[in-house]
Amino acid sequence: MGECIAEFLGTFVLISFGCGVVAMAVAALPGSGRTEGPTVIFLAAGDWLLITFGWAFAVMAGIYVAGGVSGAHINPAVTLAFAVRRKFPWVKVLPYWVAQVAGALAGAALVYWVYHDAINAFDDASKGPKTNGKTLASFSIFATFPAPYFHGGIWGPLIDQMVGTFFLVLLVVAIIDLRNTAVKANLGPLIIGFVVAAIGMSYGANAGYAINPARDFGPRLFTWMEGWESLAFPGSLSGAFSGYWWIPIVGPLIGGVIGVLVYDLFIGDTLHVRAQLHEAPEPGRTRPTTDEEDL
Amino acid sequence: MGECIAEFLGTFVLISFGCGVVAMAVAALPGSGRTEGPTVIFLAAGDWLLITFGWAFAVMAGIYVAGGVSGAHINPAVTLAFAVRRKFPWVKVLPYWVAQVAGALAGAALVYWVYHDAINAFDDASKGPKTNGKTLASFSIFATFPAPYFHGGIWGPLIDQMVGTFFLVLLVVAIIDLRNTAVKANLGPLIIGFVVAAIGMSYGANAGYAINPARDFGPRLFTWMEGWESLAFPGSLSGAFSGYWWIPIVGPLIGGVIGVLVYDLFIGDTLHVRAQLHEAPEPGRTRPTTDEEDL
Amino acid sequence: MGECIAEFLGTFVLISFGCGVVAMAVAALPGSGRTEGPTVIFLAAGDWLLITFGWAFAVMAGIYVAGGVSGAHINPAVTLAFAVRRKFPWVKVLPYWVAQVAGALAGAALVYWVYHDAINAFDDASKGPKTNGKTLASFSIFATFPAPYFHGGIWGPLIDQMVGTFFLVLLVVAIIDLRNTAVKANLGPLIIGFVVAAIGMSYGANAGYAINPARDFGPRLFTWMEGWESLAFPGSLSGAFSGYWWIPIVGPLIGGVIGVLVYDLFIGDTLHVRAQLHEAPEPGRTRPTTDEEDL
Amino acid sequence: MGECIAEFLGTFVLISFGCGVVAMAVAALPGSGRTEGPTVIFLAAGDWLLITFGWAFAVMAGIYVAGGVSGAHINPAVTLAFAVRRKFPWVKVLPYWVAQVAGALAGAALVYWVYHDAINAFDDASKGPKTNGKTLASFSIFATFPAPYFHGGIWGPLIDQMVGTFFLVLLVVAIIDLRNTAVKANLGPLIIGFVVAAIGMSYGANAGYAINPARDFGPRLFTWMEGWESLAFPGSLSGAFSGYWWIPIVGPLIGGVIGVLVYDLFIGDTLHVRAQLHEAPEPGRTRPTTDEEDL
Repeated sequence: MGECIAEFLGTFVLISFGCGVVAMAVAALPGSGRTEGPTVIFLAAGDWLLITFGWAFAVMAGIYVAGGVSGAHINPAVTLAFAVRRKFPWVKVLPYWVAQVAGALAGAALVYWVYHDAINAFDDASKGPKTNGKTLASFSIFATFPAPYFHGGIWGPLIDQMVGTFFLVLLVVAIIDLRNTAVKANLGPLIIGFVVAAIGMSYGANAGYAINPARDFGPRLFTWMEGWESLAFPGSLSGAFSGYWWIPIVGPLIGGVIGVLVYDLFIGDTLHVRAQLHEAPEPGRTRPTTDEEDL
Repeated sequence: MGECIAEFLGTFVLISFGCGVVAMAVAALPGSGRTEGPTVIFLAAGDWLLITFGWAFAVMAGIYVAGGVSGAHINPAVTLAFAVRRKFPWVKVLPYWVAQVAGALAGAALVYWVYHDAINAFDDASKGPKTNGKTLASFSIFATFPAPYFHGGIWGPLIDQMVGTFFLVLLVVAIIDLRNTAVKANLGPLIIGFVVAAIGMSYGANAGYAINPARDFGPRLFTWMEGWESLAFPGSLSGAFSGYWWIPIVGPLIGGVIGVLVYDLFIGDTLHVRAQLHEAPEPGRTRPTTDEEDL
Repeated sequence: MGECIAEFLGTFVLISFGCGVVAMAVAALPGSGRTEGPTVIFLAAGDWLLITFGWAFAVMAGIYVAGGVSGAHINPAVTLAFAVRRKFPWVKVLPYWVAQVAGALAGAALVYWVYHDAINAFDDASKGPKTNGKTLASFSIFATFPAPYFHGGIWGPLIDQMVGTFFLVLLVVAIIDLRNTAVKANLGPLIIGFVVAAIGMSYGANAGYAINPARDFGPRLFTWMEGWESLAFPGSLSGAFSGYWWIPIVGPLIGGVIGVLVYDLFIGDTLHVRAQLHEAPEPGRTRPTTDEEDL
Repeated sequence: MGECIAEFLGTFVLISFGCGVVAMAVAALPGSGRTEGPTVIFLAAGDWLLITFGWAFAVMAGIYVAGGVSGAHINPAVTLAFAVRRKFPWVKVLPYWVAQVAGALAGAALVYWVYHDAINAFDDASKGPKTNGKTLASFSIFATFPAPYFHGGIWGPLIDQMVGTFFLVLLVVAIIDLRNTAVKANLGPLIIGFVVAAIGMSYGANAGYAINPARDFGPRLFTWMEGWESLAFPGSLSGAFSGYWWIPIVGPLIGGVIGVLVYDLFIGDTLHVRAQLHEAPEPGRTRPTTDEEDL
């Protein structure tokens, strides 16, 4: 129970900061009276840095809040990958998932509570197409959708989500593997935040790098409740993105499992064999490092 | 007494760097002869990064200066939250507050001392409305005000300040909690700086993320003394922001207390119970971590 | 064998993130429907930050994946420099090189797999000169070429690659030298990533800072196979960059060896003599540090 | 002797990266064929981030190279401040200064060697006023000058240099003070790099934040030798900046000494008294930290 509360709070922090930074870039900064008006956002590569660093620090913050209690998965794909690896009990998977989605939903609600003045002003000023008075730009504050160059295809976005989450889980298990060069001094959350930044910088524009079913589904539920209906779910058959909602759920779950399997097969096994053959360290000890290995 | 001097010096460093970076973005960079002229500032999301990283390193620097002596609260809301939690003696609260506001006032004075040539050149070149020859843009170097989309409402900005400081204190107590994944190697100040960056990136544009009564009130006092009168305080009843000055004082004090209570209720208690039931560690010891928990 | 797999996977991660961030800046961000169209990229200094931080975190990620198994050279120039220094067996050099180039090739293939929709849309929309329907801009996602101000000269780009890799290896050996101020807590990969960011920020625009033969040659092979033929290799004698392909191979190999020799001659020897004269520490121990030295 | 070589090499690395990043922003990025032409630089606040992060990592790199041998002052103002504090022998001050200036001169020469094609192309294309065919913009790659809003005054720039170096030395001595929250795990160089970033972000535009006599004087000597004559030194009485060259020497030397005195007076003495009264720790030990103090 305490672990589920921690997962809820950690994911709440993640989404509160993460959707918050998109709200800043989309609605608040252009509408804060310091710029010339709500024009197109995400213009330059330099601007994308705000999004990626914002989400990086969001991940870091979520992990620091929940880490000591629940392990701070704050991502159903991480929970599933750990369960597949048998280092996390299957019976806890569903409670964790529920807590994560609920936390993400609550985070989205907080972002809307704080930013509804900015968002409404932005949507009112926008001249583009609207659904129920809401724009796709304001929807993008909360949930994700694929770039137009996919032309509505399924495989491109699905591969995008699988690849992004593959790298996320691959790196997470590497960074916490005490037989490898595990980050110490409790700075793992910072480094995992930077890994998420790397994924956003390198794989972000295809479809907004959800790489986390709770991160997308929770806020998407919120937008559906608040009136972005056809943009969020296939209630409107004509919605360009109406078929997308399940991809940032299924893609990350598959990609994360592949990530942990690839790590264990190609890196973990070698470390395991080496540990038994050469050094036989106690569990929880790092191997002595030489300078090349420290690199 | 030594602690109050440390709080003074730490808050002085915080504001010297923090208001300094806004002076850079508003007045010095546009007027330094390397750009085409003092036009509108804070244009793009990429530019907001300069503000947020500048304040992040400002917080980090202030904590490193004062940390070993006073604990480096450098924020009355942090001091109050620690007192409510009974880990900080109530009798020291007022002296700390006075030292923090005085340090912030001194920092604002230093920024003006170093930048008055740039600020005056900027204000002279500006064609917008002026109060006593000063602009709202140059006022924004020192103190904060709400975005126009609030239309002068109180609740929007008050919630904004409460939410921002809620996250600040929630994260600070998580990052220094030895039962949780407390940052080691004395790198807590860096991580707390990044947390402040996260708040600025995600909740900055609503009203400039004061999230610290001393950070806003000290420099505001300075601007009032230096001639931005009606912009700073309700001396001028027609001032659009004349009613705002108390919000970045009251909001953070409330939000910070909520932050520490939420942490203790949802995270701290679980850690406490677990410590007693399972492991009974000595005070000041971290629990042994497994790889999931290290995440 | 396990080491070669680790080098393959580490270099794969490096290139997947590294070429991915260039794909973002060149094709995906402009074509993601959030900007006004695929115009010229890399406009401002602020945008270059995305490239440099992306590569920095790419290097960090690659080292964390492979570090505990192979030492995570993920760069033939590092492997050669360590071999010259006699801290790495010569017999392993060629297998490492092959694994690194194969990993880089596979990384480039992954980037194309994920981004081919974006890249093709970008190339189709481009109005500039094309080779086999491909543009130099989309080629730049994968491999490097010199700036026009070199006017096709060899020495300028060759010196550029030697200098960049000189600094890379100089810093890597400094950061892992336990007699010097070696980074602890397994945070060396982060700092080495920041060193690569420094090289990109300071020496990036001359020719794209390959500073790694595998990083350039592997993806270049991939582009040659995928149809950027005359841009990649001198099959087309009229290609402006047809003679460049060997420079990011030879330059880094030479520069890296110089880097390790300079370090050992000017820093390592002093540390060695001092260790013997004054303190005689055991191998693998750091010297006690005083506060000046800690600086 | 070994220490002087280390100071030379550390300052060489500092300037090679530091002036390199300005060369990128001024000449190489605009001229690399990826932008529309060499127009005005340093336009936006977002672009200033490239300069400040570049110098931050430059400082970090210089300290990691020289730290274990010489303490890596790489700044005459730091050397003087440590000597005044009696923690550094006066007899070594002059040799350190000579090594630092020589290293900075050599670094500037390297930057010109690598970038002379870019710089010459930039100067040729420039339509503004030139001295001996060179522009003030290309001079700014190497050395500093005050913003036009100072109107040639001495006190403004002098205060600017004193304040910047005051904060640099104040923070350096705080970060390495084992009685305070000294950074561990040999990550001090990273944090000091971030402090320099903070100074650049907050006090950079007034006059380019030299805050280091060697950083300005060495490269200035180089530009004087290479033909930027009247821009570098008062050989030309009509030069707008002809009287500025001594300010980034004298200002930092004074400011640094004030920084160390303020720290020792307001923070160090309290720590010293507290150590003797309450805890009497052995030299080189940190005090036990409580969670508030860890903040």
